[in-house]
Amino acid sequence: MFRSILRDIVEQAGGAIGSALMGYDGIAIDQYEKPCEGIDLQLVAVEYANVLKEVRKTVEILETGEMEEVVIRTGRFTVLIRALNDDYFVTLTLKRDGNFGKARYLLARESARLREALA
Amino acid sequence: MFRSILRDIVEQAGGAIGSALMGYDGIAIDQYEKPCEGIDLQLVAVEYANVLKEVRKTVEILETGEMEEVVIRTGRFTVLIRALNDDYFVTLTLKRDGNFGKARYLLARESARLREALA
Repeated sequence: MFRSILRDIVEQAGGAIGSALMGYDGIAIDQYEKPCEGIDLQLVAVEYANVLKEVRKTVEILETGEMEEVVIRTGRFTVLIRALNDDYFVTLTLKRDGNFGKARYLLARESARLREALA
Repeated sequence: MFRSILRDIVEQAGGAIGSALMGYDGIAIDQYEKPCEGIDLQLVAVEYANVLKEVRKTVEILETGEMEEVVIRTGRFTVLIRALNDDYFVTLTLKRDGNFGKARYLLARESARLREALA
């Protein structure tokens, strides 16, 4: 059930290569990937779990409301991350020329479905 | 000279409350702020320097190209961060209802000016 949501996100967002439903412990519940050279999406997910833990800690210190979304853009990829609840988050990795706006919209929309599926 | 660029960014982006030119050591070179309740922009900058160091480390491990941009959206604010070079980055803090697209565009455009001014 998780995978079909992740697949919808990847297939509908232009230029997406993978999406993962992850725990903050770095362990993926489920993921959907398209073949893509030069990136290990499993590794991406694990590493970004560490980043997200750091962001969450920072947001708590700053008291600026709950962490909702993190976007990291590098030379080759854009990674979008959305917090789902205290334990889980979802990532979406886009090629650099992917449709960022649409990806962001889809991830926000499907987060509600993922949250329901997790409950 | 830095401050006038930071002021341009804040005044032109709809809903921005502050911008800072920062070192990865958490020390600000310069900043421009509008009065805003409930947020300590100095503290935001220092804390996000730690986040950015973590992101940079992750991006190096993943070999997905240079880190360019990080966006963190919380319940009350959106913080945009752009890497300028190995030592410095610039942050822009927006109210939640601020114009994200315009802020992102301005920060990208003015990063070139900041990079020149730093050289």
